Order: sequence, then structure tokens, then C-alpha cells
Amino acid sequence: MKIIIVGASGTMGKHLASAFEKEHEVIKASANGGDVQVDITSTESIESFFRQVGPFDALISTAGPTYVGPWKKMSGKEFRKGVDGKMMGQINLVLIGQHYINPNGSFTLITGALTHDPQKNFANASAANGAVEAFVRAAAIELDNGIRINAVSPTVIENSPQYFPFFPGDIPVTMQQLEFGFRKAVFGANTGQVIKPY
Amino acid sequence: MKIIIVGASGTMGKHLASAFEKEHEVIKASANGGDVQVDITSTESIESFFRQVGPFDALISTAGPTYVGPWKKMSGKEFRKGVDGKMMGQINLVLIGQHYINPNGSFTLITGALTHDPQKNFANASAANGAVEAFVRAAAIELDNGIRINAVSPTVIENSPQYFPFFPGDIPVTMQQLEFGFRKAVFGANTGQVIKPY
Repeated sequence: MKIIIVGASGTMGKHLASAFEKEHEVIKASANGGDVQVDITSTESIESFFRQVGPFDALISTAGPTYVGPWKKMSGKEFRKGVDGKMMGQINLVLIGQHYINPNGSFTLITGALTHDPQKNFANASAANGAVEAFVRAAAIELDNGIRINAVSPTVIENSPQYFPFFPGDIPVTMQQLEFGFRKAVFGANTGQVIKPY
Repeated sequence: MKIIIVGASGTMGKHLASAFEKEHEVIKASANGGDVQVDITSTESIESFFRQVGPFDALISTAGPTYVGPWKKMSGKEFRKGVDGKMMGQINLVLIGQHYINPNGSFTLITGALTHDPQKNFANASAANGAVEAFVRAAAIELDNGIRINAVSPTVIENSPQYFPFFPGDIPVTMQQLEFGFRKAVFGANTGQVIKPY
């Protein structure tokens, strides 16, 4: 299977690339570095990226820039970071990528528990997650040729201890649990699901 | 109570204005017409609007422009209609309006069943709804001075029969049910809730 991982230089992307490249052809994509570069905030960059990579069987996205900061300083301007990044970046990967993906392929996007379990400073990520999860359900009934789409929604992940203080009492998701979530999405048969790997 | 209704010239806004102005001071706002004009896609217009209207006790939004159309023609460009309109338009009403609202006031935004129950042609509205609902939960734990925020999420409404063919089998929400949803949000004590008035 030819699997694209967008966000391959991040904590989650690195783990998934390492896990999947034993048995599959993995294309590591990120804003800087990786096998191929893509700026998910630019539709031109996404188009160019897919033309370069060619047909593929699965796209995994772990790319999710959002604004994290005090509510009092959050204006529409700061809010745009998650709208252009984690939300429209991932949505555009699907809207454009559907024209390059092989029949019976799959898209797997990243969201997070903040959709339903907010934390202070993270309203931008909550909104982006909520948008992506609802989009996944809507896209699942629109995509044809057997193409599937799901989201994986972890809590804070064990390899990002810098976030622990922002998520008091949240039991971190292990990298293996996270990997299982993506395995279910990519190699299973579900579509339109938000997979909680815990 | 001084209640602002944004979207007051629409089907829902007209009904709510008529219902609430018997017992409250209602400021009818819309893009064109109404007592005061506001373009919710412009933060400058929103700022100017709140300065003009002054302190208030409740803001109701029934304003939700989104792109409706075939999936195959939906690109990031069309998608922006709902992102700038129903999503960021309403989110900016809160991010800016929090500096003008009276203590113990409330914001009530409009979403819809498409968040969890998608229909073809409406992926843009699904994403906007999902974003607004997650934002409402996040904002509820950030707003201070007793300020509350909720969303009302109807299915297709009885006064918009032009949408019935797009929502096969959905039992329309009556205007009275919709009004009850907003009454619960504005005059109740809940916060961070997505109220389904059916």
C-alpha cells in the first residue's frame, strides 16, 4: 500500500512512519523536511504536492497547527491559525486529494478530545477539531469509488509532556494506542467515524 | 432584557423578534435592513455594530451563510463561504461581543443537525456547525462574569420548505419548537450546551 503521511516530521507522524514503513511504501510529507514538502495552508502547494506524489492508497494527516493562548487575547486573527491550519489544511487535503487517490483508498485526519472536552487556552483547537469531525461525517457520504474517510481523536499524547499541564487529569494516549487508531482507520473498513484510540 | 437578534430579517430571526419583543427590548440586526446593520464576515463591521448598540443582555444569532452545492464542485474557495459566514461570523460575534455584553448575559448561536447527521451537498454547513458547537463548549469555560453561551441546533425548519428535498425523512422543527430552544438558552441557566429543540 502506498501511504502518504502529512506531518511526518512531528511526534505522531514519525512514529506512524516508522511503524508502517516496515510493510508499506510510506511517503513522508511535511512543511519542511520529509520526502516531499507541502504547505497545507496553501491550496496551490497541496495541488503541486499531489501531482508530484501521484496516485496513492492512503493519506494520513497528523498536521494540525492551531493557536494556543489565553482566551482574552484570542481574536479572529489568532483564530485563523487553526482555521487555515488544522481545519482547512486538512479539509483541502481531502477536497483536492480525492482527485488523486486510488479507488478504495482512505483519508485519515487528526482531531482530538478537545472537540467535546474543552480545556482553557484551546478554543481554537476545539473549533478546528469540531469542524474536521463534522466534515469527516459529511465527506463519508459524498466520496465515491469506495474511498473512505475517518478521524483519529486522541487526548494528550504521551510523547508531548509539554502539554500535560494544560490537560489536568487527562490520561495520556500512548504512541501504541495512537498507532492502533490509525491502523483501524487505514486498514479497517469503517468510514465517517471518529476513532478514539483509548 | 435588551436582546440583540443577528439575522433578524431571516425566517428564524423574524419569528424570534416577534416572540421576544412583547416582553423585551429587541434590537433587530441584519446585513441589510433591521434596526442596525452588521456584516458578520467583517470584524470591523462587528466592532462598529457593538459600539453603536451599546451594552446588552443577550445576543441571539440566526445568521448562517454556508455553501450548498454538489460535492464535486466544492473546493476550498466555496468552502470559505461557511467558514467566513456561519463559523467565523458567529465566533467573532462572541470574541468581540464579550467586551460589550452585561454581566450574566448570554450568547446563543445557531448550528443544526448536520453536525452529526450529514446530508449530501451540505458538507460546508456540517463543518461550520461542528466548529461552532465545539467553540461553544470551549467558550463556556472561558467566559467570566457569569456570561453564558449555548447553541440551538434544529433540523430543517417548517418555514423553509425549499430545503425539505435535501433532508429526506427529517421531521421539520416547528417555529414554536425553535423558539422554545432559544428561550431555554436565553432565559435558562445552562452554558456550553447544544440545545436540540425537538
